[in-house]
Amino acid sequence: MNHSIDVCLSPNLIDLYDLKGKIVVVVDILRATSVMTTALAHGAKEIIPVEHLDEAKGYLTKKGYLCAAERGGQQIEGFPLDNSPFSYMDESIVGASIVITTTNGTLAIKRSEEADEILIGSFLNLSSIADYIKMQNKDVLVHCAGWKGKTNMEDTLFAGALVEKLKLSHQLGCDTPHMALTYWEAVKADLSETIANSSHAKRLNGLNITEDISFCMRIDEYQVVPKMKGDKLVAV
Amino acid sequence: MNHSIDVCLSPNLIDLYDLKGKIVVVVDILRATSVMTTALAHGAKEIIPVEHLDEAKGYLTKKGYLCAAERGGQQIEGFPLDNSPFSYMDESIVGASIVITTTNGTLAIKRSEEADEILIGSFLNLSSIADYIKMQNKDVLVHCAGWKGKTNMEDTLFAGALVEKLKLSHQLGCDTPHMALTYWEAVKADLSETIANSSHAKRLNGLNITEDISFCMRIDEYQVVPKMKGDKLVAV
Repeated sequence: MNHSIDVCLSPNLIDLYDLKGKIVVVVDILRATSVMTTALAHGAKEIIPVEHLDEAKGYLTKKGYLCAAERGGQQIEGFPLDNSPFSYMDESIVGASIVITTTNGTLAIKRSEEADEILIGSFLNLSSIADYIKMQNKDVLVHCAGWKGKTNMEDTLFAGALVEKLKLSHQLGCDTPHMALTYWEAVKADLSETIANSSHAKRLNGLNITEDISFCMRIDEYQVVPKMKGDKLVAV
Repeated sequence: MNHSIDVCLSPNLIDLYDLKGKIVVVVDILRATSVMTTALAHGAKEIIPVEHLDEAKGYLTKKGYLCAAERGGQQIEGFPLDNSPFSYMDESIVGASIVITTTNGTLAIKRSEEADEILIGSFLNLSSIADYIKMQNKDVLVHCAGWKGKTNMEDTLFAGALVEKLKLSHQLGCDTPHMALTYWEAVKADLSETIANSSHAKRLNGLNITEDISFCMRIDEYQVVPKMKGDKLVAV
């Protein structure tokens, strides 16, 4: 095992990690990276993740872009698309260029810029991400988007699930991959029950999006590897 | 349950938490808060945790102070005391005023200043801390000192152990107390084996301090509640 896997539990801690030469897997299970994975799996041409709302607004009047914006779990007025994976499954998605800004996920992508490769991970494409990484011969860092800087369950659980997939090919880099792996192993049999206790599920339940949550917890629904090429996310 | 318990996984995330009115339990299992607990249990009059080495040096020439300084796991030259709990068990400790600066623990204490009460926690005094908190009617935040900003196993496990003790009296405030509790429950039967895998244990093993590690993992060795009064830590 010449390569390692490590886990950063919050975008507010990412400066503690050296990203150079590494594959960074950005994860925001509820719901940004699950949405991005879904859109690319359903034939979107590309996704442009933008950090600031103003930048996203600039695309609203440009021809040829579908625009999505979410803050605090809610769709922003004036944007046609929301942050539900079910909004990215129909015909209109095929071949589309989609602009997305969200509370946590797009920020984590931005803060991963120094990496050699940025992938987008979710339970929906867990095995595809793991298989892609195994072919690359690089160190890996899972960058959990969390919630406004705080660590959350669902992103940490994804980190643990990816560590489980890679533990025979990659050394565990520090304490957090051990912790995430143990946490994942302890609850994976009751994933839905665990996530029902998460603060973000409670937030989203208030917004009536229980179906989104259970969809985002499905493992290997898609075989797609979303990767940043310049400022755009495409399927590789 | 009118009160809550939450867990901050790194001093670099503490600004995300409102400490006002709360009891903050600072924990740096390997080894700062274990050492402080040991010293007070063995009759030290008070401990003065200082953040910077220069400040600690100022006490070296003052009469009546025992001084300890550690950086990166190693004792700093010129300071008579190291960061091993076994150095705080003899007669010279009784009635002493001890000045301590360490890599992570003393920083976490400093960054907890806005709290209503700051306690020092370790496995050595786990139940005493829990019993004290149950009598206070306040929200609780466990502040894990970690390692240079990164989250570590042993402090997170202490957080989980304290959540387990308080889960009937305190609501779990966000995702991290759930995560820490599940992690603790999953490994508590094999605590020594788990900690042997921790990055800090590996660091300390390189320094030949395996006995320190196993001592710091002992649960309820002492009945002492170390609490900050002004800039000094005393037993209450």
